[in-house]
Amino acid sequence: MSQSSATGLPPVAASNRLTASAAMTAFVLGIDVGGTKTAAVLFDEADRPVGRAQVVTPRRGLTDAVIDAAREALAQVPVGAGRLVGVGIAAPGQIDVAGGRIRQAVNLEEGELPIAGMVQTALGVPCFVEHDARAAAAWLFESPPDKDDYRMTHIAYLSMGTGISAGIVLDGVPVRGAAGLAGEIGHVSADPNGPSCGCGLRGCLEAVAAGPAIERRGRAAVEAGQTTMLADGPVTAEAVFRAAAAGDPVAASIATEVGAHVARAVRALVLMFGLERVYIGGGVVASGDAFIEPIERELERERASSSLIRHAVPAGVIRVVPGDTDPVAHGAAVIARAGIARMRPRMGP
Amino acid sequence: MSQSSATGLPPVAASNRLTASAAMTAFVLGIDVGGTKTAAVLFDEADRPVGRAQVVTPRRGLTDAVIDAAREALAQVPVGAGRLVGVGIAAPGQIDVAGGRIRQAVNLEEGELPIAGMVQTALGVPCFVEHDARAAAAWLFESPPDKDDYRMTHIAYLSMGTGISAGIVLDGVPVRGAAGLAGEIGHVSADPNGPSCGCGLRGCLEAVAAGPAIERRGRAAVEAGQTTMLADGPVTAEAVFRAAAAGDPVAASIATEVGAHVARAVRALVLMFGLERVYIGGGVVASGDAFIEPIERELERERASSSLIRHAVPAGVIRVVPGDTDPVAHGAAVIARAGIARMRPRMGP
Repeated sequence: MSQSSATGLPPVAASNRLTASAAMTAFVLGIDVGGTKTAAVLFDEADRPVGRAQVVTPRRGLTDAVIDAAREALAQVPVGAGRLVGVGIAAPGQIDVAGGRIRQAVNLEEGELPIAGMVQTALGVPCFVEHDARAAAAWLFESPPDKDDYRMTHIAYLSMGTGISAGIVLDGVPVRGAAGLAGEIGHVSADPNGPSCGCGLRGCLEAVAAGPAIERRGRAAVEAGQTTMLADGPVTAEAVFRAAAAGDPVAASIATEVGAHVARAVRALVLMFGLERVYIGGGVVASGDAFIEPIERELERERASSSLIRHAVPAGVIRVVPGDTDPVAHGAAVIARAGIARMRPRMGP
Repeated sequence: MSQSSATGLPPVAASNRLTASAAMTAFVLGIDVGGTKTAAVLFDEADRPVGRAQVVTPRRGLTDAVIDAAREALAQVPVGAGRLVGVGIAAPGQIDVAGGRIRQAVNLEEGELPIAGMVQTALGVPCFVEHDARAAAAWLFESPPDKDDYRMTHIAYLSMGTGISAGIVLDGVPVRGAAGLAGEIGHVSADPNGPSCGCGLRGCLEAVAAGPAIERRGRAAVEAGQTTMLADGPVTAEAVFRAAAAGDPVAASIATEVGAHVARAVRALVLMFGLERVYIGGGVVASGDAFIEPIERELERERASSSLIRHAVPAGVIRVVPGDTDPVAHGAAVIARAGIARMRPRMGP
């Protein structure tokens, strides 16, 4: 509190150029805490991104990194353009929505972090947290990329990157689970005889279909001396899908196997939750058709042999979230707006 | 309508001895439509079964069979004891709750059956339908067998018999899915290299862990000439678990493998929905400890190797529904009472 300004406002809020200006637009900040990068995106009332900053996600000191990114994004909007009214933080792990805490994030060292309160004090506006995939699902539910999807009531966002998890919205309500741990499909069994997973089990979906697993499969093929263009450069998940698209049979066989696992995960989501749409996004999806086609091919194969699947998991059930949108930051903004709306007095009966 | 009585009541209602008597207890009928048997259970206001009848589930003419069973159960209560106020029907397949229809029940030949309206006309009281596992979950949520479970908000009922499905209640709300098809865990992949399933896919949970799959595994062992007491009698799922309990190593290995599949299905339910409790019931559960112990053993093994599982799927997450209770009939009664409550005018604001 040593830096408290004479205005009585919290110290950092006093340095927030927007709050000092005449109110025009009510901006919200959506913050996407990723395993490697943390992005802060400032959105206007029409949900358009008007400022953006990115920092490396630190192993310790996440709150300061979030505040730095937030300030940098805010500084991109001219003084007088509007004011910040709320912040939403979307993060992986177990999220305590009511307490504003992040818990048990595998990639973050901090055990339990009361980040919402700390950011709220620093920026002087209400702050809310939510699970990243769940926040993205909330945004896709409210603002679906395809206009036809506005009639959908049961959807999920399947986030595929370094880790895999799902955000699910049923009848318009996000599924959080009793302890904020719903949607952890990354550690559901994909193959009982599959490889070891970082979580300690074996054959988890993450261990056969997340970015690092795809990389590992590619490297193993190179190390085994298989004839593949993967031998020519650094083996990444992206390189595997690029080689598959270029007709490399070793890479294509990895892409086919990954696609079959993801198709079965989509089937599991749809059958267990009764979904109409599964949006797929995250780092792996940037590989485009080479990633998506094997999934669609496997689902077509399932439809051809099962009337249940034809009926319950119809063609078109999957939508890819375009690589140039940022569903998690958008989702964080949705969480901020919803949180603010809950704080306002209700109109009479 | 040729049998219409002079009272103007629908024909069958006139023969319902309870409706003709002075109202004392408000009874509801819970009807459990199973793949082989259909049971009608009459419950009093304290949810005690006071009448019960059972008929063979016909391949065609389900409605008449339900009405016959209902009348027989009603006849077991003396005239003047009370009156019937509603009927709940719990059935497998895709249930159109709003339209009172049963659709796509694999074991029932009828394509789409508007059973609620027909039973309502026949018995002269409101009738409601629900998916069988979902109805059972609703009952277990409202009246948990263990008093501690009253504080639970996220639970599932895993029904294991000829087929496998789940009923899920999240924050007190049953999960139906967009088209009434949620909870179809029986056709989620348990092993991508597993045996063919009746649905046309391969490796579904039902194909490796339902009653017929267990039977098939036992028969295959006998036919392969393995040394097992299963060779001594008819091979049923129950016989497999009985032999396993008696120390037969061939049967024990089948029970272990089935238990591992069910443990992974429980893990999938808990991680995807964020559950606190999974109740397991159905025909296979009648085999008791020989069925449950291998499931608990596999979950213990998972907890030992993964802190995520220790945290998210803690010991005690499974409860077996005692064989002498009938969760589906009880669930059908819950559905009847809830349906009636929705029809009554609401108290003012």
